[in-house]
Amino acid sequence: MILTLIQNLGKAARAAATELHTAPTAAKNAALLNIAQALHDQSAAILAANAADMAAAAAQGLSAAQLDRLQLDPARLQAMAAAVTRIAALPDPVGTVITAWQVPSGLHIARVRVPLGVIGVIYESRPNVTVDAAALCLKAGNACILRCGSESLRSSQAIAAVFAPALAAAGLPTTALQLVPTADRAAVGALLQLQDDVDVIIPRGGKSLIARVQAESRVPVLAHLDGNCHTYVDRAADLAMARQIVLNAKMRRTGVCGATETLLVDVACAATHLAPIVLDLLAAGCAVRGDAGTQAVDPRVTPATETDWHTEYLAPIIAVKLVADATAAMAHIARYGSHHTESIITANTATAEQFLQGVDSAIVLHNASTQFADGGEFGMGAEIGIATGRLHARGPVGLEQLTTFKYTIHGNGQIRP
Amino acid sequence: MILTLIQNLGKAARAAATELHTAPTAAKNAALLNIAQALHDQSAAILAANAADMAAAAAQGLSAAQLDRLQLDPARLQAMAAAVTRIAALPDPVGTVITAWQVPSGLHIARVRVPLGVIGVIYESRPNVTVDAAALCLKAGNACILRCGSESLRSSQAIAAVFAPALAAAGLPTTALQLVPTADRAAVGALLQLQDDVDVIIPRGGKSLIARVQAESRVPVLAHLDGNCHTYVDRAADLAMARQIVLNAKMRRTGVCGATETLLVDVACAATHLAPIVLDLLAAGCAVRGDAGTQAVDPRVTPATETDWHTEYLAPIIAVKLVADATAAMAHIARYGSHHTESIITANTATAEQFLQGVDSAIVLHNASTQFADGGEFGMGAEIGIATGRLHARGPVGLEQLTTFKYTIHGNGQIRP
Repeated sequence: MILTLIQNLGKAARAAATELHTAPTAAKNAALLNIAQALHDQSAAILAANAADMAAAAAQGLSAAQLDRLQLDPARLQAMAAAVTRIAALPDPVGTVITAWQVPSGLHIARVRVPLGVIGVIYESRPNVTVDAAALCLKAGNACILRCGSESLRSSQAIAAVFAPALAAAGLPTTALQLVPTADRAAVGALLQLQDDVDVIIPRGGKSLIARVQAESRVPVLAHLDGNCHTYVDRAADLAMARQIVLNAKMRRTGVCGATETLLVDVACAATHLAPIVLDLLAAGCAVRGDAGTQAVDPRVTPATETDWHTEYLAPIIAVKLVADATAAMAHIARYGSHHTESIITANTATAEQFLQGVDSAIVLHNASTQFADGGEFGMGAEIGIATGRLHARGPVGLEQLTTFKYTIHGNGQIRP
Repeated sequence: MILTLIQNLGKAARAAATELHTAPTAAKNAALLNIAQALHDQSAAILAANAADMAAAAAQGLSAAQLDRLQLDPARLQAMAAAVTRIAALPDPVGTVITAWQVPSGLHIARVRVPLGVIGVIYESRPNVTVDAAALCLKAGNACILRCGSESLRSSQAIAAVFAPALAAAGLPTTALQLVPTADRAAVGALLQLQDDVDVIIPRGGKSLIARVQAESRVPVLAHLDGNCHTYVDRAADLAMARQIVLNAKMRRTGVCGATETLLVDVACAATHLAPIVLDLLAAGCAVRGDAGTQAVDPRVTPATETDWHTEYLAPIIAVKLVADATAAMAHIARYGSHHTESIITANTATAEQFLQGVDSAIVLHNASTQFADGGEFGMGAEIGIATGRLHARGPVGLEQLTTFKYTIHGNGQIRP
């Protein structure tokens, strides 16, 4: 029975999490370095398993893009090991005193970071997620249940086979990192019901996966469904800066969640700013879908429809709209945005502050590209994703966001009056 | 239709929350002081409505305790108004920079507190919750949907009638604070499904209410189901201190969630410490249910069963068990505890640190009473409850815990390489 299988994984993960709650940093780092070494040592077996996945996927007619995501080679395997080594070198968030104070009763209260507990990670075909997610969860003191896509199960099993020996050699419980050992889709549904033994679910993958997880899960989810990000070019924007930032925000990488999808331009600077920015985008190979004012710039601009304002293209396509002012830009973002990342380009500090305060998104930038929406760029060292929910973690989910806290209180005999 | 009614409350709350996102502190405080004043001005109408609730409740045969929770009088009404005035005087958490740093790209990143959004509060018969919860949510910039118990609907409606004029006079949206205007139980189910328009649900009441909310809600819940709190008296405990703290932890108020329910005593100090502590409890009128060692102290000690270790009595009853050492105490807490509040009494610093680090509860104390588990005692000014979940808020939920954060980032033209 799948349900029993998943429940047993959950119980084993919970038991491991209880041990990990106080695991020394040195032991966690040793386990991570053991994993990195074992990925080298077991590379032949891992690549052979991946070749079998690739053959099956090709026979099933997966697209070239899907096959590329699935494929491992010695360089990619080495990059996976290097990522684990980097995570081992990051500071351990557990035990950090977030804040501390004394109250009139004389009690010393400290808010201390502790592991979240058990994290379920549900992903698709990229085998590197098996290692990345496991390493981040473990470094933050969490047990992890990994659920990969069916097409990468052989690869992920070959990778996950290194975990238990690496953990055991470091004196940590071998069930701290477990892979769901079946492609049965019912396993996902079962995992999403494990309220008692899984503390948070992190889905990584396409929109349909995220939507299913958010709709079904009884366990709290850290994720973002959409990254419908906006850049607003204000009347007080420096034109050269606006051109550079918009081009970068849209075109640097079009497939990332922080890519700008809709450009809003202040009508007060449309005469000077709109055409150069739109022509830059067209010259870079970006399709432009605009309102009437934008269409007037160039015949290659096609009409934008209501659907465009809602769309996260993840492609070299941008929607462009003229707005009356910053307030109108903010109203558009409130209506169509996904609370992910928005940027304002302006030299007017007051307008910038109005935008930064008023826009209700996880990340709001002034005079910078939305493509900075990334844990690495935030200085977090690594991230497992970006969250747009309102509770616990918003924005990049790095090691700190994979912890929670408790209050530790020192007294000297206090009783409450 | 109840569903439509609740959905409309949700949409109106979301619209209000969007305005409240940037509402000035002065406007929020003005609205709170208007509410306090209006509670005085409308006291006759509120007391008349409460009298009608009381008459109906008495006719339905509610218990004396239930009637006491429901009853208002001029003194209670004045205390409600005073609580609102105190909340107005607390610092506004919104806009606070939690942390800020610069990254190598030159971006200045700040993590800034912002309102959570829309909070649903589901409670039972105490009419004061209508005011307390509304005031805390509003001060933190949140819109609030209040759902009271059916027996207090007239009282709560009379109280809630002051909200809209108080908000309007302060220039804030009148739908910021809304009461569900029906006793229909289907309203709770509908509210728990409003994922898009409610950001968090806070239930306040008995265990059956909390359990129902946790089981049914599609919206994240901040709550605690149980407060099965433990005090552990270690071999290195000062006897006088242990006696004082245990007596206070159990008997100061037995109905609060931070009251100690199980006492664990180190077998190494049982000969000296157990009898005085147990006799103190018995002398104070506490029923003691103990293991064999505890029963040997006094014939009034009755045998504890497996059920006792699981039970939150909320009454003058305590379960007492001898344990081999601090590690055994921690194992008992891990097995039976509810992750709420636990305390160790010891003069041994190393043992205390082992306990503080190893016990996975929201609040862990050393040499102090578990009854300090309270937002007021933490210096938070006020609290809406205590949470034992792992995400976002653990321990007392005060104004800060009713906020979330966003990243505001200042650049000077940065594009991502």
